[in-house]
Amino acid sequence: MEFTNKLKDFKIYMKDIEYFNCALSTLYWDARVSIPKKGAPYRGDVLGFLSSEMYKRQTSPEIKSYIDYFLSSEDADKITRAMADQAKREYDRSMLIPEDRYRAYVIAVSESEAAWEQAKDKADFNLFKPHLDKLIAFNREFIEYWGYEDSKYDKLLDYYEPGITVKKLDTIFTELKDAIISLLDRINASQRKPNNAFLRSDYPVDAQRRLCDSVLKKMGYDLNAGRVDVSVHPFTVTLGHNDVRITTHYYIKEFQSALFSCIHEGGHAIYEQNISDKLTGTMLKTGASMGIHESQSRLYENIIGRSRAFWTYFYPETQELFPQFKPIPLDDFYKGINVVQPSLIRIESDELTYSLHIIIRYELEKAIFNGDVSTEELPALWNKKYKEYLGVEPQNDSEGILQDMHWSSGNFGYFPSYALGNLYGAQFMQALKKDMPDIAQHITKGDLLSLNDWLKKNIHEHGAVYHPEELIKKVTGEKLNAKYFIDYLNAKYSDIYGF
Amino acid sequence: MEFTNKLKDFKIYMKDIEYFNCALSTLYWDARVSIPKKGAPYRGDVLGFLSSEMYKRQTSPEIKSYIDYFLSSEDADKITRAMADQAKREYDRSMLIPEDRYRAYVIAVSESEAAWEQAKDKADFNLFKPHLDKLIAFNREFIEYWGYEDSKYDKLLDYYEPGITVKKLDTIFTELKDAIISLLDRINASQRKPNNAFLRSDYPVDAQRRLCDSVLKKMGYDLNAGRVDVSVHPFTVTLGHNDVRITTHYYIKEFQSALFSCIHEGGHAIYEQNISDKLTGTMLKTGASMGIHESQSRLYENIIGRSRAFWTYFYPETQELFPQFKPIPLDDFYKGINVVQPSLIRIESDELTYSLHIIIRYELEKAIFNGDVSTEELPALWNKKYKEYLGVEPQNDSEGILQDMHWSSGNFGYFPSYALGNLYGAQFMQALKKDMPDIAQHITKGDLLSLNDWLKKNIHEHGAVYHPEELIKKVTGEKLNAKYFIDYLNAKYSDIYGF
Repeated sequence: MEFTNKLKDFKIYMKDIEYFNCALSTLYWDARVSIPKKGAPYRGDVLGFLSSEMYKRQTSPEIKSYIDYFLSSEDADKITRAMADQAKREYDRSMLIPEDRYRAYVIAVSESEAAWEQAKDKADFNLFKPHLDKLIAFNREFIEYWGYEDSKYDKLLDYYEPGITVKKLDTIFTELKDAIISLLDRINASQRKPNNAFLRSDYPVDAQRRLCDSVLKKMGYDLNAGRVDVSVHPFTVTLGHNDVRITTHYYIKEFQSALFSCIHEGGHAIYEQNISDKLTGTMLKTGASMGIHESQSRLYENIIGRSRAFWTYFYPETQELFPQFKPIPLDDFYKGINVVQPSLIRIESDELTYSLHIIIRYELEKAIFNGDVSTEELPALWNKKYKEYLGVEPQNDSEGILQDMHWSSGNFGYFPSYALGNLYGAQFMQALKKDMPDIAQHITKGDLLSLNDWLKKNIHEHGAVYHPEELIKKVTGEKLNAKYFIDYLNAKYSDIYGF
Repeated sequence: MEFTNKLKDFKIYMKDIEYFNCALSTLYWDARVSIPKKGAPYRGDVLGFLSSEMYKRQTSPEIKSYIDYFLSSEDADKITRAMADQAKREYDRSMLIPEDRYRAYVIAVSESEAAWEQAKDKADFNLFKPHLDKLIAFNREFIEYWGYEDSKYDKLLDYYEPGITVKKLDTIFTELKDAIISLLDRINASQRKPNNAFLRSDYPVDAQRRLCDSVLKKMGYDLNAGRVDVSVHPFTVTLGHNDVRITTHYYIKEFQSALFSCIHEGGHAIYEQNISDKLTGTMLKTGASMGIHESQSRLYENIIGRSRAFWTYFYPETQELFPQFKPIPLDDFYKGINVVQPSLIRIESDELTYSLHIIIRYELEKAIFNGDVSTEELPALWNKKYKEYLGVEPQNDSEGILQDMHWSSGNFGYFPSYALGNLYGAQFMQALKKDMPDIAQHITKGDLLSLNDWLKKNIHEHGAVYHPEELIKKVTGEKLNAKYFIDYLNAKYSDIYGF
């Protein structure tokens, strides 16, 4: 009886936190999509206030008593335990840091973000360096409060991808890096150079919008429980139960940008839309981890969205919307959108080299938190690695070390989840093919719902109930590894580049 | 010292309430403008949760101690006293009702709104009657908790328009009713019947949008601190400091609908945008009352927006956007948009007869709360009054007593503020003309900013610091009265109808 009542109260308590979270997401979405220019500063205050109200509830003695009770109770079922576990992660992360130190950190982050913007504009790392030093020092200090086992950096990785360690990533990323570099060598050596000149033309925004909508509908993104808007940077956000929205950005000169960002965000959104209703109000109605979430967006964007099967179905419609493609055979189009071209900017990179951008960031973050590199040495080290892995060299800090805002926000340990998404995605796809060997035929016919159903049943509907390690094991029977993604890359590019 | 510290704390306390209010407004705006269909029910839960969090703060022992302290302190300045006064109104209204009765009422309202929708669809008052009975009984009960002097209905009126009583309204509305009915008689007897056939045509939505934007800009509505969206029913909402948004609805067959709703909502929005920044965080950054707010929207919509001076400036642009007006002389156009045609539906009525719709509702509400009429008798009484005052008769309850949703939400006492807006507006205009006798010439030249400035200085920037009675006295030197509005109507319609 005590258990039943306590569980009821715990659920009410968590539901209230979820309400705050949904209000925050709505205000955030509006700030990115709709807010008039002059309204932004006050909105920041409102967001700050609501965040602190939510934080109070996530760090109260009351939630601590629920966590302790349910984590030690033998009656707690899987969901209740996951709720308590999730609550504990937030609680520990916040409560182990002295309040004044955390407040100082928040201010430092806000100053750092402003400095990074300026530094990026002026392509001058020195303007950002003192702020980066400060944030690194804060994070080092926090790691001491939190405690760690093997590596300080582990603690940062674990926040975004529970269970991930330097030890695991070193093995996996080394294997991945070697495989990609070797593939790159073969691609560079290949005589076959697919033509993609037809991707430099004008693509009317209205036609782009229609193609995006059509693809999203076929993917199973429910537009009665979501919507597509325009923002500077594409993102996905869940504003509440049955309200998962995505944004994109249309460029008239870019055929691929809006489309693939829609497919990418659509992958995130379908994940969120497919989570079981019974997890509403538990704070588990979200992805299992950053990496698992990214696996769904990248699986849709690349493994599906850049596949021959996908374009077999969508190319005729695309040719109607963009008549300039009419003279281009499907096979040329397919190869054209899969051209490999090492470049400097992560978010503009091709499917193959993308992971190298991430691995470089991983290696630098690891070196930073191991104390193997000073921030002074970072730009040169960055450039050296780009030269070595990708064969390209930044001409200034803006297209080098300053390109991403993550570090300016103190998000160390976040980058690896992008690459892990590729690996998880290929592993899931392998498992899916065992269950549905004819998946390519389905996709060729425009049936993306079979894929959606399988992902829903195996991954999506469980939300954050399973730990990512549990989930990948449960779905694929294997641990996280790079094998299937490497096999996929080898097969895809040897076909396209003919080796 | 105690005073200073306490005032600082009071301001922080009120600012937090304002943050909740802004979050609620943002979620509300989104629910009307953007939310995907399936997302609405959960959004209702989030709104309910945040409302109750705000309510807790508005009814806490802490706020009671601030109210008591500052209302009895001789050091409190005008603004502080107004803050405490405003807080007391909310506090008393809520705290005098036993909690279980209030909770029961909230449920009754929600059931009643659903029943009203059904009843309106089926044009059957009997489906709504039991709910209306229930809400009336609740309001009678609440009035006993609150206490009252002369009339029970006074207590309801006072909530929307502080200081307004049945005694005052009886005098004012009788005078107004007689004047309008006598004007209507003269209009009906007039040989002159302005032609408005040119208002039945197609008006492309894009051209309507451009005209609306152009007019709003000229009015001084700051689109960097606001935006115009589309919703089923037009409304204005303040989402935060420098973020006041309006909505409208474009109908291809209606030239006047979107335009005049934009001017109307623009009037509300300009009021909100013009409130002094120093009132941010005080909960006084809003209109002085419902009636004063409505005075600004109706002044812009009718006294300005349907004036000859206004169209002298905007007609050439309008003719460019809608070439079908090119053969129509300005004077014919002006008369055409001012044709008087008594009709059944309040929100579609012309400027002259609008107030009669309100007076009928006022008389019925008064009779209800005086116990002079049973709900059973209401539909017949409604129809009788429409026949008597307007010369039209509803064919069913849907175009009669069921047309407005206000009663289904328990908003008794709300309607009169719409008509008071007309009276306040004409009084303000009279005062403005004393300061700026050449205002019509300004408007003829498209200079609406002089008007905006005067309204800002005299009315807008004070927000809710002044009680409406104080404000009208301060600005016009007189009490609320019907004289100036009646003079305005007589002058306008004798000119148009030639008597």
